[in-house]
Amino acid sequence: MPNNITIDKTALLSRLRSLGDIGRNADGALTRLAASDADKQGRNQLVAWFEDAGLEVCVDRIGNIFGIWKIESEIAPLMMGSHIDSVINAGIFDGCYGVLSALSVIEAMKSGGVKPDRPLMVAVFTNEEGVRYTPDMMGSLVYAGGLDADEALTTVGIDGTILGEELSRIGYAGEMEPGDIVPSAFIEVHVEQGPVLEVEGKLMGAVANLQGIFWQKVTIRGVANHAGTTPTRLRTDAGLAAAKVITYLRGLVDNSDSVATVGTIEFGPNVINVIPDFAKFTVDLRDPDLAVWETRQAALVNFLAELEKSDGVTIETEQLARFEPVVFDENIVQMIEEAAAEQQFSCRRMTSGAGHDAQMMARICPTAMIFVPSRDGISHNPLEHTEDEALVAGTKVLLDTATRIVTGS
Amino acid sequence: MPNNITIDKTALLSRLRSLGDIGRNADGALTRLAASDADKQGRNQLVAWFEDAGLEVCVDRIGNIFGIWKIESEIAPLMMGSHIDSVINAGIFDGCYGVLSALSVIEAMKSGGVKPDRPLMVAVFTNEEGVRYTPDMMGSLVYAGGLDADEALTTVGIDGTILGEELSRIGYAGEMEPGDIVPSAFIEVHVEQGPVLEVEGKLMGAVANLQGIFWQKVTIRGVANHAGTTPTRLRTDAGLAAAKVITYLRGLVDNSDSVATVGTIEFGPNVINVIPDFAKFTVDLRDPDLAVWETRQAALVNFLAELEKSDGVTIETEQLARFEPVVFDENIVQMIEEAAAEQQFSCRRMTSGAGHDAQMMARICPTAMIFVPSRDGISHNPLEHTEDEALVAGTKVLLDTATRIVTGS
Repeated sequence: MPNNITIDKTALLSRLRSLGDIGRNADGALTRLAASDADKQGRNQLVAWFEDAGLEVCVDRIGNIFGIWKIESEIAPLMMGSHIDSVINAGIFDGCYGVLSALSVIEAMKSGGVKPDRPLMVAVFTNEEGVRYTPDMMGSLVYAGGLDADEALTTVGIDGTILGEELSRIGYAGEMEPGDIVPSAFIEVHVEQGPVLEVEGKLMGAVANLQGIFWQKVTIRGVANHAGTTPTRLRTDAGLAAAKVITYLRGLVDNSDSVATVGTIEFGPNVINVIPDFAKFTVDLRDPDLAVWETRQAALVNFLAELEKSDGVTIETEQLARFEPVVFDENIVQMIEEAAAEQQFSCRRMTSGAGHDAQMMARICPTAMIFVPSRDGISHNPLEHTEDEALVAGTKVLLDTATRIVTGS
Repeated sequence: MPNNITIDKTALLSRLRSLGDIGRNADGALTRLAASDADKQGRNQLVAWFEDAGLEVCVDRIGNIFGIWKIESEIAPLMMGSHIDSVINAGIFDGCYGVLSALSVIEAMKSGGVKPDRPLMVAVFTNEEGVRYTPDMMGSLVYAGGLDADEALTTVGIDGTILGEELSRIGYAGEMEPGDIVPSAFIEVHVEQGPVLEVEGKLMGAVANLQGIFWQKVTIRGVANHAGTTPTRLRTDAGLAAAKVITYLRGLVDNSDSVATVGTIEFGPNVINVIPDFAKFTVDLRDPDLAVWETRQAALVNFLAELEKSDGVTIETEQLARFEPVVFDENIVQMIEEAAAEQQFSCRRMTSGAGHDAQMMARICPTAMIFVPSRDGISHNPLEHTEDEALVAGTKVLLDTATRIVTGS
């Protein structure tokens, strides 16, 4: 890549901080929920930056914003981006980094005299976090054709609002039909939101796939009895059965790429000297490989069935969520690895443990992601942090990868 | 035993029902907390029955009531009895059965012409349940010298009342010094409050000992992290560590006389996709043998220490209660077994899993208990039930045992 094509680090980092100041409450906590007033302010700021960069701005019916560097071409655009909505009491990097990084890349290409063979687009997807409106990754899901736009627009939020009305209110109910422009490729840069890069001392992740996510609620029913007068052989202990599931799950995934988490639990009647007659808990089970992931789910089903027999309990399960694993485009992943190698950035192939807009875009075009380290693996938290050098490095790799694609080099 | 000495079944059963009607609320729920108005009514009814039976009534400073069949003798009295205070929304048998059974036994002896070699006493101990005032088994504990009467009388209840003032208010702050009469023996008849007799088809339990009770609160601290992005090897999962303790405890006590229960649990932050950073739960660990019981407690201490090392968690424990096991008097237990055999009642030696006034009286005199079956093992509940025949049978065995003691036969 020619040396005169460089990222404007100062602009990138100062925009990240500026955008991170939009949506702060009196205590300084950052919350920029989808289609809220704070989101409107953030969107307005982005649109201003897009226009300053000479990009054409268009908005689709689900509120996704696109900043387009128009190029006359037969080739479909290269799209880059992420989201700027946040969780409650958020950090400043999640999503915003991917959007501003993409903007910096286009600016660098423009000022460096790159002649792309196709248009370039920065995408800002609506409601990735899913805090105010369910499901999460909604804007990209609609864009990829996985959810009807009209249906999505009628979604009622946790505050009783309707997404479509809120988008109109904040001025981001656009006219473009979601999915009208099918990109030739999509690349999303993101903070890792996990500890792997930091622990391994790597600066960069070439994200080759994304875990399937399975969420289940499990209710085990036993018999409440006196903790002193009921001999062990006469117990039907729902709490013990739940503990067996938790330890089983760890054994199931240990030394594999799968992860399993029991994050919530409740016993009833929850009294010190009464054997629990129910235990309710949730299972979060993930794996990047579809077959492995489904095998794990089936193993859990079998284990619960055996537990009903061995422990005399009854077990009900309810599926709360299920997103299949996504495999990203091998060509783009290799280009990312090559770009990192050329810059002498330490890099590892990796799996995304969290969900991202890229997993939706992968349905309609070749897609991949670039990760940079998250300090202590922390995200969705004001302590979310990535070093400036890593932020710039990730953007350089995106620039290099995008340049390879749009110049055929 | 002569055939003319018989229990007045009708009186026993009708008194049980009458006493069980005292303390009902508008919905019919029975609650007769210690030193309450309902307790006063119940006590007044009992005193009336004692006086009808020709017993001398005296009350000690902690409110324990005694109905005494005075006999000139050098031998200390035989004491029988239990308590009439109840839990909230109680059954009618817990405690009351032991008191009314003792009254029926004395009446049967009197009308049958038994000439006892010592006085007989029915004891009604204050605040056995410990619901309104802590600790439980308070009246018998004070009587046995395990707690100073003046200190006990200053106890502040869950409703802010002071026990001594409430006893005065209801007219049961007596003058007798608790423990002034040390009995030659104490026998308590009680419903089992557990499932063993029913499951084994036995009519009677000769209670040879009473479990030690150890209550502990355990707090395990780990590290909260994202359930998707944190590989298994980088987790410090407080919930998993808690599950390991629960399954360990079952393994520790399985196929032994010990019982272990984790009845309460809480995870933090208790979110489906966050690894728990704390787990708080309680351990209830019981065994009738002091050495075994202490070995179990030590094993748990070791397991928690190992868990800190293996799982990287930190663990704090807090002891909530500790009552050592009690061994009852072998002679009286054998007499109970002989009395049951003579009546051709099926009988088994057993351990009391719950606490009783008898465990306190065992500190000052030879003591034992008689159990009758509880339907479905249920107690501390309106569904508490024992069949009439079993209630009468238990009283017959008490009568026979008491007669053997006071006639030297």
